[in-house]
Amino acid sequence: MSGAARIQLTDDGRLRHLLTTEGLGRALTTEILDTAESFVPVTRNDVKKVPLLRGRTVVNLFFEASTRTRSAFELAAHRLSADVLNIEGRSSSTTKGETLLDTLKTLESMHVDMFVIRHGESGAAEFFARHAAPGVAILNGGDGRHAHPTQGLLDVFTIRRHKPDVAGLSVAIVGDVLHSRVARSDIHALQALGTQDIRVVGPKTLVPPELDALGVSVHHDLRSGLADADVVMLLRLQRERMSGHYLPAGSAFHRGFGLNEHTLGYAKPDALLMHPGPINRGVEIAAPVAYGKQSVILEQVSHGVAIRMAVMAMIIGAHQS
Amino acid sequence: MSGAARIQLTDDGRLRHLLTTEGLGRALTTEILDTAESFVPVTRNDVKKVPLLRGRTVVNLFFEASTRTRSAFELAAHRLSADVLNIEGRSSSTTKGETLLDTLKTLESMHVDMFVIRHGESGAAEFFARHAAPGVAILNGGDGRHAHPTQGLLDVFTIRRHKPDVAGLSVAIVGDVLHSRVARSDIHALQALGTQDIRVVGPKTLVPPELDALGVSVHHDLRSGLADADVVMLLRLQRERMSGHYLPAGSAFHRGFGLNEHTLGYAKPDALLMHPGPINRGVEIAAPVAYGKQSVILEQVSHGVAIRMAVMAMIIGAHQS
Amino acid sequence: MSGAARIQLTDDGRLRHLLTTEGLGRALTTEILDTAESFVPVTRNDVKKVPLLRGRTVVNLFFEASTRTRSAFELAAHRLSADVLNIEGRSSSTTKGETLLDTLKTLESMHVDMFVIRHGESGAAEFFARHAAPGVAILNGGDGRHAHPTQGLLDVFTIRRHKPDVAGLSVAIVGDVLHSRVARSDIHALQALGTQDIRVVGPKTLVPPELDALGVSVHHDLRSGLADADVVMLLRLQRERMSGHYLPAGSAFHRGFGLNEHTLGYAKPDALLMHPGPINRGVEIAAPVAYGKQSVILEQVSHGVAIRMAVMAMIIGAHQS
Repeated sequence: MSGAARIQLTDDGRLRHLLTTEGLGRALTTEILDTAESFVPVTRNDVKKVPLLRGRTVVNLFFEASTRTRSAFELAAHRLSADVLNIEGRSSSTTKGETLLDTLKTLESMHVDMFVIRHGESGAAEFFARHAAPGVAILNGGDGRHAHPTQGLLDVFTIRRHKPDVAGLSVAIVGDVLHSRVARSDIHALQALGTQDIRVVGPKTLVPPELDALGVSVHHDLRSGLADADVVMLLRLQRERMSGHYLPAGSAFHRGFGLNEHTLGYAKPDALLMHPGPINRGVEIAAPVAYGKQSVILEQVSHGVAIRMAVMAMIIGAHQS
Repeated sequence: MSGAARIQLTDDGRLRHLLTTEGLGRALTTEILDTAESFVPVTRNDVKKVPLLRGRTVVNLFFEASTRTRSAFELAAHRLSADVLNIEGRSSSTTKGETLLDTLKTLESMHVDMFVIRHGESGAAEFFARHAAPGVAILNGGDGRHAHPTQGLLDVFTIRRHKPDVAGLSVAIVGDVLHSRVARSDIHALQALGTQDIRVVGPKTLVPPELDALGVSVHHDLRSGLADADVVMLLRLQRERMSGHYLPAGSAFHRGFGLNEHTLGYAKPDALLMHPGPINRGVEIAAPVAYGKQSVILEQVSHGVAIRMAVMAMIIGAHQS
Repeated sequence: MSGAARIQLTDDGRLRHLLTTEGLGRALTTEILDTAESFVPVTRNDVKKVPLLRGRTVVNLFFEASTRTRSAFELAAHRLSADVLNIEGRSSSTTKGETLLDTLKTLESMHVDMFVIRHGESGAAEFFARHAAPGVAILNGGDGRHAHPTQGLLDVFTIRRHKPDVAGLSVAIVGDVLHSRVARSDIHALQALGTQDIRVVGPKTLVPPELDALGVSVHHDLRSGLADADVVMLLRLQRERMSGHYLPAGSAFHRGFGLNEHTLGYAKPDALLMHPGPINRGVEIAAPVAYGKQSVILEQVSHGVAIRMAVMAMIIGAHQS
């Protein structure tokens, strides 16, 4: 188990931080998903504020811009009645040379309770967790190529709501697995629930053979990779994380591994189509299928708020007791 | 009636969105103004929070920066006890190529209730309203040259508080009418209340003769345009929306159409002097008259919060019933 | 007494604005510190929201970026149950040519209650206070080289908690005194509490002899400046405020006036080591002593929230009565 996987748990196995879906195990993963169920509104008017984090402060500390993820964490915090402090890494004290550690210690000294950190460097969230004061929780909002655990959790949550026997599903993860923290977090979360048949699918440059060390099968052909799949999880081409080597043209990528009405047919007829967003239209996915009837992309977004509320609620519970 | 005018009303004529002051009609316009009256504090200590939007989320989605408008909407939402999510178009997902529609659908999926959208393209707010899910309201915070309806409403609200017989007034709108969404929204709001004598006043390049299609009289001479006017509404020179053609020098504009202690005398002695802000001092208006005794410019700002509270409250009411 | 010192008090000597620590006097300074004591949480779970500013709006108007100061004011406002409006000077109406006065009057018209203003020009906060409407309070969050009064107050608060007889202490302020608003605010706050032995210590270019007009002794040698000091207050090298003249290399400055395990020994063995942050590691201070056992740097940060809560609470009290 990695250091991040160990440090995020208390001695009695409760959630102290959320750094990675690795090592959460079936019981804790299931507890998060079950807790999230209680935060999914049945109707729009059913959205309610609950007072679990009243008087608490959640800091959104984003060194990479992300409207989607920042908004989901901010809304989750609001709905738990927390106060939110938004800090963008660029405009922050880094312009005055303050280090990441100083930033943590400074804000921590102001008695904030929870940090959501998003950073371009793998390991940034674990670094924060290792140095955090007792009582301060770190939530990884995405660190480099390492992990994006709330995305992994909301993805398996969405799958479970449609196909409850997650262990028995065939799941194909398609695209730029090499640079994707989402892929890693999805794989660990699926494995926690017992899923055996996980395939990673893409060109050799983005899905090198050694990825089978993750316990998944590797496919360089879309048709074979999607054959009989129950779930097709697309990844975003992370052009911003590719440097110096293979940068596929969008259209070339789409010809080989893009999802459209034809290639979606390689999977089972009722396969779920997923994407963490934002979509590169015409690259990973053609617009008509992105909002087509097999797509659960917007459900993923919706569930992202419930998952973040669940994680925050469980962590505050573990810190209080 | 334009598409925006139609789509903003429910089948029984209530306010579902606010896209334009066009087609609101006398009854609905009056209802908005009357509702706003209840939100005008008598004294500073009279500002109170009301729980009408408790548990609701208002998204300020601004693709054009505007401290003034964003602040007024944010304060209005706070005073109705809503949570507010601020998103700037520049720093948002547009940097990752997500389209406007994806932005709407993504945030909507997080169960937000209301969007205030400001965008440089005319029609952006109507586009949002056409695609919004049931229960989600769109408030136009200014779209291109098209409309800025809360500005039009706060302007007629300010006029009505000083001169209740709005139908019988002579109103001169001075300046860059061609590029002004404010002028269009003012004209429609005044006409809804029955005002007959509306004049648009400015150089031919900024007030072309064909503007009489709006049902107003066109003046290219400041003295004749202001003669016996009860209200003088100045517009801001929208240099940022002028491209490729006539760009008047500030001083030249002021010589012909600027308001100062002398030219203000062309209107009635008790004429109201209005400006939507921010002021270009020495261009549309000389500093001494901007805060002089005929000026109601700061009242306009103050009333802007009450109008936005009224619109939000009425829309939530229409969505709930 | 300066204009800023006079204008910040009501006729009966209560706190109307906070512009400078100059002229606050012993009684008022002590009242602020005593009030702040009630806002220092004993444990993390002891942080509570109090309703003193419920329904009030605090505007953070920052023309200079500062994560630390903005966050402390924002958290203080949240914990007093105020609503907060964050405005960055850069992205604000100044891009449309609106002047500072127009910005004040516009926001004031929206019935906000308190401005925290940070600005690169000395005197900006006093300018705001002179033009503010009755009932509107101005808190100086740092103006040019002039003053940073909440920093001065939190510094003496931190000192008093460790060494209650502040009047009898020897305090050395080390570094770039010339460009430092913090130094000025510290000196005035210490003098209000009766401290006689205040030394300013640094190279002649940054601590010119004429600074003795502040009623302090001037030292150009670190050893003599720190001799028998009870408190060592470091200043940040304000490179951004130095122009055209002496810009010391970080390493050269550290050799002459940097604090490290050796030079800290010049002061008393139990001397407090303070720094307003953010730290330039290896310049004003070596990393090992920054978080060493004599350092109270993080306590300063923590106390910054309590001091700002105290100031806000006292000002609202003065405005209400």
